[in-house]
Amino acid sequence: MNPVINLKDKAKLFSEHWSPKVVAELNDYQFKLAKLKGEFEWHQHDDTDEAFLIQSGQLTIELPDGKAVHLSEGELFIVPKGVMHKPVAKTECTVMIIEPKGVINTGETNERTAENDVWI
Amino acid sequence: MNPVINLKDKAKLFSEHWSPKVVAELNDYQFKLAKLKGEFEWHQHDDTDEAFLIQSGQLTIELPDGKAVHLSEGELFIVPKGVMHKPVAKTECTVMIIEPKGVINTGETNERTAENDVWI
Repeated sequence: MNPVINLKDKAKLFSEHWSPKVVAELNDYQFKLAKLKGEFEWHQHDDTDEAFLIQSGQLTIELPDGKAVHLSEGELFIVPKGVMHKPVAKTECTVMIIEPKGVINTGETNERTAENDVWI
Repeated sequence: MNPVINLKDKAKLFSEHWSPKVVAELNDYQFKLAKLKGEFEWHQHDDTDEAFLIQSGQLTIELPDGKAVHLSEGELFIVPKGVMHKPVAKTECTVMIIEPKGVINTGETNERTAENDVWI
């Protein structure tokens, strides 16, 4: 049987930033916890929407045309498929990302691409 | 652009029990808030896993063979595809359910089937 996943307990198990860790799978989707601090890079996911659900702290997601959303604990935002975005966390933020298995954090592979499908 | 969804604010917008309300879509999946109180019925979803993420209160999900999981705020549990389950909330619980669009709350249609695809 599947385990009960306590998200706060899981978040204590790692400290790296910008390196999502898988905590559960739902069909071919994954729930990933990530700790974010500082500025990420602009990227997009051509084949999928991406959900951000803030667990602690605050996250800004910069969007095209100078727009941005500012997210706090308990807030959910869906970045639509194919939309450029840049996450920025002035202080550390813990977020749950929900997206299909296999999606990489940088859209296309580069030096900031995290190892994929790492479970905690 | 998609809205920022504050889950606590959304939960204030309805009071019915066992009647999930859609708050967001991710590709062909939906995020639904539901308030649960009392005992639901045994059912299963033949074609999909189902995620429960507790927002407030506590939820027991009874499972086959006398097993059960007990979930509190911040805990996530995935009911596997095809597994019979019965949610029970001794006191009111608010939960976010994540599953493909079109899944009905009772597995098969009956007198406890809630209207589907109702957004708040």
